[in-house]
Amino acid sequence: MANMVNDFNSYREKMNDKILADNNKVIKRIFNLDTNAYKEGALDVKTKELLGLVASTVLRCDDCIKYHLENSKKAGLNKEEVVEALSIATLVGGTIVIPHLRKAYEFWDELELEDR
Amino acid sequence: MANMVNDFNSYREKMNDKILADNNKVIKRIFNLDTNAYKEGALDVKTKELLGLVASTVLRCDDCIKYHLENSKKAGLNKEEVVEALSIATLVGGTIVIPHLRKAYEFWDELELEDR
Amino acid sequence: MANMVNDFNSYREKMNDKILADNNKVIKRIFNLDTNAYKEGALDVKTKELLGLVASTVLRCDDCIKYHLENSKKAGLNKEEVVEALSIATLVGGTIVIPHLRKAYEFWDELELEDR
Amino acid sequence: MANMVNDFNSYREKMNDKILADNNKVIKRIFNLDTNAYKEGALDVKTKELLGLVASTVLRCDDCIKYHLENSKKAGLNKEEVVEALSIATLVGGTIVIPHLRKAYEFWDELELEDR
Amino acid sequence: MANMVNDFNSYREKMNDKILADNNKVIKRIFNLDTNAYKEGALDVKTKELLGLVASTVLRCDDCIKYHLENSKKAGLNKEEVVEALSIATLVGGTIVIPHLRKAYEFWDELELEDR
Amino acid sequence: MANMVNDFNSYREKMNDKILADNNKVIKRIFNLDTNAYKEGALDVKTKELLGLVASTVLRCDDCIKYHLENSKKAGLNKEEVVEALSIATLVGGTIVIPHLRKAYEFWDELELEDR
Repeated sequence: MANMVNDFNSYREKMNDKILADNNKVIKRIFNLDTNAYKEGALDVKTKELLGLVASTVLRCDDCIKYHLENSKKAGLNKEEVVEALSIATLVGGTIVIPHLRKAYEFWDELELEDR
Repeated sequence: MANMVNDFNSYREKMNDKILADNNKVIKRIFNLDTNAYKEGALDVKTKELLGLVASTVLRCDDCIKYHLENSKKAGLNKEEVVEALSIATLVGGTIVIPHLRKAYEFWDELELEDR
Repeated sequence: MANMVNDFNSYREKMNDKILADNNKVIKRIFNLDTNAYKEGALDVKTKELLGLVASTVLRCDDCIKYHLENSKKAGLNKEEVVEALSIATLVGGTIVIPHLRKAYEFWDELELEDR
Repeated sequence: MANMVNDFNSYREKMNDKILADNNKVIKRIFNLDTNAYKEGALDVKTKELLGLVASTVLRCDDCIKYHLENSKKAGLNKEEVVEALSIATLVGGTIVIPHLRKAYEFWDELELEDR
Repeated sequence: MANMVNDFNSYREKMNDKILADNNKVIKRIFNLDTNAYKEGALDVKTKELLGLVASTVLRCDDCIKYHLENSKKAGLNKEEVVEALSIATLVGGTIVIPHLRKAYEFWDELELEDR
Repeated sequence: MANMVNDFNSYREKMNDKILADNNKVIKRIFNLDTNAYKEGALDVKTKELLGLVASTVLRCDDCIKYHLENSKKAGLNKEEVVEALSIATLVGGTIVIPHLRKAYEFWDELELEDR
């Protein structure tokens, strides 16, 4: 697996385990909601992942962007669809989003390397 | 037409006219992009409107939320789909989003009154 | 009861009822968490209300500030304590917070009028 | 004096007086800094007012925008210069800035009515 | 001393020295206020540090979080109290706060390593 | 050329090339606007660069700050002018801006090393 993707996921997993081991109810429920909110409902999983991606991008959270890029890819979204979502985020959020766009492109490339 | 919707649209139109009359190139092009970005492409219009709605909601811009609620309704999205998008925005953006959720519900109700 | 406080609470209640009637699970659980998170735990209620107030102030959410001002007063915090919390919020959040400080002062005065 | 400008200034003044009467040292010093920071230094007053205006605009604080629009006009800046500053703010901050641009235009028009 | 804590503090100190050596009055006074605002007043030091921590967390500033975690620990706050404050920040600020929560946990662990 | 400046510019260039190669119209036009908006108009290039710098600083985007610091230096602005702009950004944006101020100072020093 590509290193950047691997590093991101293993750090994320390790720290999530530590956080959840603490048994703070509010935090545990937010983590739980985060898993459930993106499941198929009135909207399908692809649309929801794009919503999560755009929310993460305009709020300029690199780790959140990576997380939703990975899930977007797993859900079967292709690059053109993802980039179109990112273009709306860049328009709404302004040029301040561009540095995060660069990192999003870099991470997507890493995700594609995994498939080969 | 419901008053809240009408007031919002007429103020928006009046001020947009003033802004565009000034011929500032950068602003005019951003307005122009804003019209084009939500047209059908790799993603359909419904999905794009939901992306604009969620971006506006996590960035807590009431007027932007109203604009995308109106366009979401015109594009044929129903309330359940819109609320599901808003629920993701509330989860990602936190309880700080709730006051904007209240106003979004109020505006959607006004939009539905128009149809009767 | 002072009008500004009354108006705020009745609008809040009316719209919360509409939102919760919709039965969106994610939103309902976030509302539920919002009630539970400020209950006494390792930290007492007063401290938690001040934390909610400062978070709301640096994120510049007037309605959230009002909500926590009212709860802070109910929890027995006095004006000097509340203002000291707001001063930290203004320092951390910058002069951009000042307009929200004005509204916070106005709302606190209304809350004190209730007691007379 | 135009009503919108007058209302804004009298509310601002009234609440600032209340805030400063409280003698919270941190808040008083921040207010004091706010007065001093825009005085001529290595940069002239016009440039500093535009910096304050752009900072206020990308942070989407309507009252702060009004304050710096009024000071920009007093400092002798013309509409074209102010709009060019706002265009940079709109580009950097994204379309989410547009509703604040509308209010900025409205307030500038009111400021110009005062001169007649 | 643990490396992560040490690196953070030495970079912070080195750059603060450079900034303060420049004698910009506005910046120097803000730095000065930052030291004074967290001293005991109507609220005790522990409460104020938690307020600074929550403000930093909802505004998603990793370095500010580290600074207040270190001061919280010095002020005698235990992990359960700190985590409860962070849980309120995560609820108010949304899932976008989670990546900063991970880093906060990592830094707190480093702080605890110092004591051994 | 100083390493930090060089690394920043080569990564920026490499990723911009990848992004623009994708031919997403919205993104391409935003990139294009970003180049044009800072050209001389009613305001001169120096003022516009400072506006871009302050917008980037209050929005706390390190890469955007670096980009405008480099362009500010190329446009002939000296350190005192740049620091005065940064001081306004720190006042408006609050102490949350300070970590970005540290990085801005570090990058400016690297830019000055290039000249020697």
